[in-house]
Amino acid sequence: MLVLGGTASNGIDIGLSRVLGYDLEKIETSKFPDGEIKVRIPEIKEGKVVIVQSTHYPQEKNLFELLLTADAIKGSNVEITAVIPYLAYARQNRSFYPGEGISISTVMSLLKAVGIKSLVTVNPHRSGPLMNFGGKIEVIRAERRLAQHLMGVFTRPMVLAPDSGGVELARSAAEVLGCEFTYLDKNRDAYGNVSIKEAHGGDFAGKDIIIFDDIISSGGTIELAARHAYSKGAASVSAAGVHLIMVDGAAERLKNAGVQRIFGTNTVPYEKAETVDVSEDIAEGIRRMERDIS
Amino acid sequence: MLVLGGTASNGIDIGLSRVLGYDLEKIETSKFPDGEIKVRIPEIKEGKVVIVQSTHYPQEKNLFELLLTADAIKGSNVEITAVIPYLAYARQNRSFYPGEGISISTVMSLLKAVGIKSLVTVNPHRSGPLMNFGGKIEVIRAERRLAQHLMGVFTRPMVLAPDSGGVELARSAAEVLGCEFTYLDKNRDAYGNVSIKEAHGGDFAGKDIIIFDDIISSGGTIELAARHAYSKGAASVSAAGVHLIMVDGAAERLKNAGVQRIFGTNTVPYEKAETVDVSEDIAEGIRRMERDIS
Repeated sequence: MLVLGGTASNGIDIGLSRVLGYDLEKIETSKFPDGEIKVRIPEIKEGKVVIVQSTHYPQEKNLFELLLTADAIKGSNVEITAVIPYLAYARQNRSFYPGEGISISTVMSLLKAVGIKSLVTVNPHRSGPLMNFGGKIEVIRAERRLAQHLMGVFTRPMVLAPDSGGVELARSAAEVLGCEFTYLDKNRDAYGNVSIKEAHGGDFAGKDIIIFDDIISSGGTIELAARHAYSKGAASVSAAGVHLIMVDGAAERLKNAGVQRIFGTNTVPYEKAETVDVSEDIAEGIRRMERDIS
Repeated sequence: MLVLGGTASNGIDIGLSRVLGYDLEKIETSKFPDGEIKVRIPEIKEGKVVIVQSTHYPQEKNLFELLLTADAIKGSNVEITAVIPYLAYARQNRSFYPGEGISISTVMSLLKAVGIKSLVTVNPHRSGPLMNFGGKIEVIRAERRLAQHLMGVFTRPMVLAPDSGGVELARSAAEVLGCEFTYLDKNRDAYGNVSIKEAHGGDFAGKDIIIFDDIISSGGTIELAARHAYSKGAASVSAAGVHLIMVDGAAERLKNAGVQRIFGTNTVPYEKAETVDVSEDIAEGIRRMERDIS
């Protein structure tokens, strides 16, 4: 039983090894002057190996490191589980136009091609397209862990989902926090501009609003939600995202909209946020998988 | 019959379409703010598709674009040929230590996983490891085309292979140019420092030395060879590389060693060199493949 941590394991490899009692090794990587990477791993003859590698930016490099590692291990007596805390390309899960590739489906094929038999990931944007993988999949929902971290932090918390797609996540978080929740409806005009229509109930006045979402990327949705919350009398607004991708000026955007604190997890490294470790949730997922097998 | 050009096709897609008389389409790619890419291709129901995509820097991004494209096309009535003018990771073809992955073998598995049935590439550093691919492979040797381009350029040409691994390539080039060739022996001391031992015959005095190699990467080997040639009385030194990777200050290094002109091909874009188009050689390779099938 071995945990192999990649360069983008963000400490989750260490957490898993501790919680599961597996040995821990690091994938040694080197980079050539031309940009090519090379991996070196300990010799593994049999048993179970859990490779931990997140696939945030640079996505292809991180993914390729995982593929190289699995391919180097691949053998008849080794069972490979990949833990991909943040799974790249999971947002691109359908074709909008004929001829558009479904990237996540390609990623699943590649994982399979290098001998990965089981996959554990955290809050994929949608989980349907992962089913192409064919192997065993365990989806971890980290919003409860994130919400636990926020218990006692705010005096009058209310959870807000910035759009209707986030209702389930917000409901779970509010349940943990023991507070109410509501969600916003987004409106998209003919030019593609997004605006907020209205909240589905809930009184923002004097509340500490915590906007919960699975991914905070450019932060545009959070910005709109924060402005809406303040316009309805919120006392403070914070944001909690499982995956803090934070690109394209997201930090500035949230700050300008008055978002006071940002909370996240260690599926993606983002040093400006208060983050919680999701290793235990992933470890539980691995244990569930093992029980299902035996 | 369709040629599909990727973002790293360097004009070879256009050349192939013209020489083979195939239709030409471009892979449309878009990039999301978080760095993920998406491909869109014309609808292809049956027949033969040649995807052209080189895998120089950024290697994983270029490779992934090719994989996404092939995966989007993949279908029972479409036969996919990948033309990868510069094949990344072909230099990493053996494990130096136990546990080191063989990256090129992984690349071959990935190509196969997305339904690529045939592969055409130009001067891979070694071709042995490509055999893992399983499908049809056509290896193009572009040194003759490169040498043809140099005919009449120099008054007293002599071809030089910078190490013993490049002898065959230099011999072919010299044959085309109708001049003599020689090669150098490299010496590696206990600290890993490389120096030149001696040339295997050939008189450098007053000659226009053309150092031929498959890949010019950091240019260290070329630098040593150039200095050696001048020390033996060469009138001028130029460098000709099939793949001009040119990283890590290579241009400066060559200039400082007195290399006067650099020649290459369009397998890798490098605007400071005089380059020749290898489309016709690749087209011939595709035709050979077709003949072998029928």
